[in-house]
Amino acid sequence: MAAVESACRAHGLPYPREPMKSAIEVLQTRRSIRTYADKPVEREIIEEIVDCARLAPTAMNNQPWDFVVLTAREDLQRIPPILGHAEFIANAAFAVLVLARPTDCALEDCAAATENLLIAAAAHGIGSCWVAGAGQPYAPVVAGAFGAPQDRQLIAIVSFGYPAEEPVIEKRPLADVLHWGRF
Amino acid sequence: MAAVESACRAHGLPYPREPMKSAIEVLQTRRSIRTYADKPVEREIIEEIVDCARLAPTAMNNQPWDFVVLTAREDLQRIPPILGHAEFIANAAFAVLVLARPTDCALEDCAAATENLLIAAAAHGIGSCWVAGAGQPYAPVVAGAFGAPQDRQLIAIVSFGYPAEEPVIEKRPLADVLHWGRF
Repeated sequence: MAAVESACRAHGLPYPREPMKSAIEVLQTRRSIRTYADKPVEREIIEEIVDCARLAPTAMNNQPWDFVVLTAREDLQRIPPILGHAEFIANAAFAVLVLARPTDCALEDCAAATENLLIAAAAHGIGSCWVAGAGQPYAPVVAGAFGAPQDRQLIAIVSFGYPAEEPVIEKRPLADVLHWGRF
Repeated sequence: MAAVESACRAHGLPYPREPMKSAIEVLQTRRSIRTYADKPVEREIIEEIVDCARLAPTAMNNQPWDFVVLTAREDLQRIPPILGHAEFIANAAFAVLVLARPTDCALEDCAAATENLLIAAAAHGIGSCWVAGAGQPYAPVVAGAFGAPQDRQLIAIVSFGYPAEEPVIEKRPLADVLHWGRF
């Protein structure tokens, strides 16, 4: 690969292409991360992650989403006792509350935006874990604790941080989930 | 760039490196595409797109999804009359029906998988449009038309193809959706 490297460098192109993986690599290697290094994430990176979420697809261009970013340790520590689980949120570098206005496709729209958060983070080498919000008994408590208006529904809580674990997850193989032409 | 091109080709690396953008670029530039070039998408690329969807996050590792891939023109043409809209599906290179088993977080899980389909396609320069399925009156009709078992819910229909349009969409600015510390 030396010829590729020298040609790339001579022309000002990045080499190696890491750490900014291709989108396909990011999608294929992302895993839920619940153990985080004690290292903050720069504000500019957090903004870029949320920027990617706001550009998610949305039915009728409704964009029902708002994102509350929590970076203060005391804010992060408030959440697990309300949930009764997900203690790892307290140790995250930051968390995002994904909140929805009540629209027809609010859950799908905000799930797509949440997935964009995860992928954008992974593109930066940042791990994350999606904790369910929609329909959970604790959802209005968490939303209210951080000032959300009454009509907003908490769709997800996502914790983020540089990974301190490498989990292996078994997924159904492609041949099991892909059906050509008919189920 | 000739030196880069020849070095890449000599080493079996793709050149130009476009359309394999970084994940962040893909997330920031993806738009819903409803007008498609008359050009098929290779089977290997379709498989890679669905592979990215199957690796989406999923509550309790439930993986409630199945994906029915439609490439036959007569199959694609069957869908718009059932929906009463989305005529563009008939002209797509292919479409994917995203189907869910009934689980607690099936809608979020399958929405995340659907978003992965869109992003993986965009990484290959392929446009797509997410048509809502969940809760729509036509959902069981479409699911049944392509052999889905009775207990599966149609979450989304996604049409794909190389773009023949460059839509511009207004999204809410970052400062409007991002809240630091409190809504």
